[in-house]
Amino acid sequence: MGVHRLGYVHARVTDMEDAKNHYSNTLGMKIVHEEASHDSERVLLHGESASMEPVKRCYLKCWDEWDHHSLVLEETGVGLVKLGYKVSNVDDLDKYENKAKAFGVQVSRMSKGDNLATGDGVRMTMPSGHVLELYHEMEYTGTDTGTINPDPWPRDMRGVGVHWIDHCLVTAEDPGLFERFMMEALDFRPTERAITDPNNPELIASWLTCEMGQTPHDLAVAKGPDAKLHHFAFFLETWNDLLRAGDIFSQDDVPIDVGPTRHGITRGQTIYFFDSSGNRNEVFAGGYRTMPDFPTITWTGEQLAKGIFYISREMNEKFLNVVT
Amino acid sequence: MGVHRLGYVHARVTDMEDAKNHYSNTLGMKIVHEEASHDSERVLLHGESASMEPVKRCYLKCWDEWDHHSLVLEETGVGLVKLGYKVSNVDDLDKYENKAKAFGVQVSRMSKGDNLATGDGVRMTMPSGHVLELYHEMEYTGTDTGTINPDPWPRDMRGVGVHWIDHCLVTAEDPGLFERFMMEALDFRPTERAITDPNNPELIASWLTCEMGQTPHDLAVAKGPDAKLHHFAFFLETWNDLLRAGDIFSQDDVPIDVGPTRHGITRGQTIYFFDSSGNRNEVFAGGYRTMPDFPTITWTGEQLAKGIFYISREMNEKFLNVVT
Amino acid sequence: MGVHRLGYVHARVTDMEDAKNHYSNTLGMKIVHEEASHDSERVLLHGESASMEPVKRCYLKCWDEWDHHSLVLEETGVGLVKLGYKVSNVDDLDKYENKAKAFGVQVSRMSKGDNLATGDGVRMTMPSGHVLELYHEMEYTGTDTGTINPDPWPRDMRGVGVHWIDHCLVTAEDPGLFERFMMEALDFRPTERAITDPNNPELIASWLTCEMGQTPHDLAVAKGPDAKLHHFAFFLETWNDLLRAGDIFSQDDVPIDVGPTRHGITRGQTIYFFDSSGNRNEVFAGGYRTMPDFPTITWTGEQLAKGIFYISREMNEKFLNVVT
Amino acid sequence: MGVHRLGYVHARVTDMEDAKNHYSNTLGMKIVHEEASHDSERVLLHGESASMEPVKRCYLKCWDEWDHHSLVLEETGVGLVKLGYKVSNVDDLDKYENKAKAFGVQVSRMSKGDNLATGDGVRMTMPSGHVLELYHEMEYTGTDTGTINPDPWPRDMRGVGVHWIDHCLVTAEDPGLFERFMMEALDFRPTERAITDPNNPELIASWLTCEMGQTPHDLAVAKGPDAKLHHFAFFLETWNDLLRAGDIFSQDDVPIDVGPTRHGITRGQTIYFFDSSGNRNEVFAGGYRTMPDFPTITWTGEQLAKGIFYISREMNEKFLNVVT
Repeated sequence: MGVHRLGYVHARVTDMEDAKNHYSNTLGMKIVHEEASHDSERVLLHGESASMEPVKRCYLKCWDEWDHHSLVLEETGVGLVKLGYKVSNVDDLDKYENKAKAFGVQVSRMSKGDNLATGDGVRMTMPSGHVLELYHEMEYTGTDTGTINPDPWPRDMRGVGVHWIDHCLVTAEDPGLFERFMMEALDFRPTERAITDPNNPELIASWLTCEMGQTPHDLAVAKGPDAKLHHFAFFLETWNDLLRAGDIFSQDDVPIDVGPTRHGITRGQTIYFFDSSGNRNEVFAGGYRTMPDFPTITWTGEQLAKGIFYISREMNEKFLNVVT
Repeated sequence: MGVHRLGYVHARVTDMEDAKNHYSNTLGMKIVHEEASHDSERVLLHGESASMEPVKRCYLKCWDEWDHHSLVLEETGVGLVKLGYKVSNVDDLDKYENKAKAFGVQVSRMSKGDNLATGDGVRMTMPSGHVLELYHEMEYTGTDTGTINPDPWPRDMRGVGVHWIDHCLVTAEDPGLFERFMMEALDFRPTERAITDPNNPELIASWLTCEMGQTPHDLAVAKGPDAKLHHFAFFLETWNDLLRAGDIFSQDDVPIDVGPTRHGITRGQTIYFFDSSGNRNEVFAGGYRTMPDFPTITWTGEQLAKGIFYISREMNEKFLNVVT
Repeated sequence: MGVHRLGYVHARVTDMEDAKNHYSNTLGMKIVHEEASHDSERVLLHGESASMEPVKRCYLKCWDEWDHHSLVLEETGVGLVKLGYKVSNVDDLDKYENKAKAFGVQVSRMSKGDNLATGDGVRMTMPSGHVLELYHEMEYTGTDTGTINPDPWPRDMRGVGVHWIDHCLVTAEDPGLFERFMMEALDFRPTERAITDPNNPELIASWLTCEMGQTPHDLAVAKGPDAKLHHFAFFLETWNDLLRAGDIFSQDDVPIDVGPTRHGITRGQTIYFFDSSGNRNEVFAGGYRTMPDFPTITWTGEQLAKGIFYISREMNEKFLNVVT
Repeated sequence: MGVHRLGYVHARVTDMEDAKNHYSNTLGMKIVHEEASHDSERVLLHGESASMEPVKRCYLKCWDEWDHHSLVLEETGVGLVKLGYKVSNVDDLDKYENKAKAFGVQVSRMSKGDNLATGDGVRMTMPSGHVLELYHEMEYTGTDTGTINPDPWPRDMRGVGVHWIDHCLVTAEDPGLFERFMMEALDFRPTERAITDPNNPELIASWLTCEMGQTPHDLAVAKGPDAKLHHFAFFLETWNDLLRAGDIFSQDDVPIDVGPTRHGITRGQTIYFFDSSGNRNEVFAGGYRTMPDFPTITWTGEQLAKGIFYISREMNEKFLNVVT
């Protein structure tokens, strides 16, 4: 079967109270669990020595998601701890463990409970240094609208009311290697690719969708420092939802990077902004539907700014250079 | 891999010139091929005796589709001739041929060219009498925006400018059997189900998505006469596109059935209307994203009108009873 | 200067608690004052004998209105008590008192305080039997966003969040006489007129805007029984706001009459629905901008259904016949 | 009665063919008249010596305007030649001639035909050096949708399809004097005012609406060089129209200044862009409804960036400094 979505983002924040306010009150996620612990998993994952200071963690979900959580925050700085992608079938764990090993990256098995409310899985360190986990089960807690005669949205929606964690863009020194890993080891396929020059092409960025996906992208990579986060994105339905989101960002003093505007790439609409720790977020709306036979789109260097920000056809320095 | 989308609808119309005007000028599809022939395929498919009268056919596609065509019209009355679903892998043809045979329905092989611009395939007569074809290849002709630095929409879009053929709703005397066939023989999964009563449930309707799909539905069934069409639908992106579509329907004297309004089921937005032959069409916008682990939604009889037309919570007689 | 807007609607309701829930929780108005009194004004206005039962009244305003209130509800049945239009200049009261007397209708002076929080005014009984009041002052209480660095909308908006009372449609046995009164006595001008037949025209309905207005209509009249209310309308900004309103109506079990749809007349978008007492309300969005030199639009009888409901081109019986 | 709208903008362009392409093909205006002449009016207006070179002029109108034209282009550089505001009553010309003279500015009478298709008028040089004309009559040529059973928009709309010329923002060294002139001589009223500091206020900018207007602004002024144009704006109905406009600007290589975004001031939505000569244009959507008793809004210096661009709360150098 294969991978079908970005299930969770585990990110670092500098101040948990500010972060909770941002993701919960402004974006509208629900806090589902909080903990502060000396956990052994940190030691294993990051090779850190066990600290005497407990690490604060907060688990959140969006109103339109049915699994236990989709965002894990920990008060340890900025950037990504790891990404979790959900597979359709328990056998997929073996399949991708083998494929990733064959590709030559570091792979280990996770046991049920290593991640809160999450079943067995496979953890791999990508060639870019990012940690990616595959899992097949997470505790089902249901959406806010439920499964019996549901309303289209919950009346008590807060703030921006993001639907779900949609995708992530990370940076890698060798985007071509990153893309090859995603395709060969994890069966992702590129929907759009940015290259320097059609005659002498070098890959600048690639937008990849899960084998089982019909979205424009579930994970994207752009040239930049290894192991860094450019942004993770939340889904909104329409351009009108983005205007309302922008209004709320202004009311809540959320720093804006770019937007609202149209992407050429994915055809979606966007606002980029920063969380209270300086991690870049996006609210993303629209975008086309992809398919296994979707013809990959190519953006050439001289048109790339149009691809990124279709209306202005200009990129700002911050957008190009700030990663966490 | 599996089925991933509704690839084509082959429908009957009473007057080809009127139909071409409807689908091309009003809806904005492009006519890609026209023919009038005494074709042997008709004889085989429908068990008709070869007529001296050539059958007029017209092939059309939407601007956002990359395969050769998605709609085949023939001037032979009203209703469906057949539906074509595209599979991801050539091996899927064998797999589903076997599964369908095992289910006990009539299955035959199609050869490349039996359908214009289409490769080998499998044809099956569903328990409801509908003809469904699976195929893996169709001639690639590209979208109107192309694959190199594409615009989000083509400047020369006509009429409503529908994106793609999205789904089909057919009627069957035994919706439960139809659903079971789709699930067991073709690996579809139900996203929403309407039942009479939670305590003593009888299936009224089922909305099913392809195994490889993330849409709210690729094929749906409602209780009604066998082998009939309720509607086939075209995708539009937003509620605003529906208003513009409604305006164009008024300008072009297209008969409206219901809408614009919100569906409870799928959460999408809709206008139902009739083509020049009396076949019901829909323009459908929005709708949630489904997944292999999407929790199936249940609508109970007394709330079904709300499920169908969320705002008015009323169904009209025409919507319930007109099928072709 | 002249009349510039519909300032208040004073309507009857059958149950005050239900009505407060409808206008406050569903539509999002704010209750600014409640009272229950044996008031002499009722006796004067309606020629009733003073009742021993106190009449319950509730005053409400929308978040985007700056005057004290725009809706007065009293628990005395259904339909209109009266309408209040605001004039720009205190001298306008004399001007229109004289013009209305010259037209031959019954006119009387109101004193400050006859209506809560409202200054001196002129009350007239229109040829159709409707009571219309003009006033120049009402206590200023400000909008919910204020006048210093205001946000575009208040974060604590409830329910549908209607902006303001926009217009009213009443019925009259002689719409031509009603229109002539509005034009001659109150300097309104017709923006659109519906007639039976261009060759032998009889006026079916007229949409009139204030002399100082740029809206499509501030008061409209359609042929029907004298002294009755067809609907009063609240303004929303866009078609998207109407979808959200429709969703909320469904969640709150508000009966829908028609919509969402487009009007041909005014070009606006609409949902008609009923309050808890059976008075028809509308949420109205969009619409063109009018001017003193706006060329009056004519709708002819055979196209009138298109004028009313542009997309379906059909009127329902309820819309035509239910008045309160 | 009074002034009721910005009727025409007469602007300079550097290349007429490029300008015609911009205003006609991209924005969707219709060219209604072209001429090239040695006209005496130029000499009188601008004190120029009669040139041997004929001046090329082009007259255009929007589809939703009923008067002969709303934009005059002449191939003489960049910036404004003059603005025309329409009055409701022929007597208004005398009234404002006297008021303007009393204010102490230079005023002269225009005769029918001095401006193409335009009746008698009054021309005044404002304290800021801008030339403003008042007129009461312009040849009526009707909108593209007409006055008999009209559609809400014309099916053959081109490009962005702007509705009408909406307002203009000019710069003046003394915005306070400009505002006082508009209020005292022309009966405009300020809807919003930007000041440096509440305790020691100096006027930075003022947004003024016509006496007969209900729009957020018909003319605005900001501190800057005298006699210069910041931008003139075209009306679009919604935020969705702005996205479509932005897409077309990208397709037509129109340089963007800022947007799409929300204004705090006026609550409207906007894209600023440049015509082919470097004059700044705006497409403006939404905005509240004003009234004679609209409570004037104040923006304080430290919040002004939020007032201008509500979402980003940042102004760019170009927006602040480029005027023509």
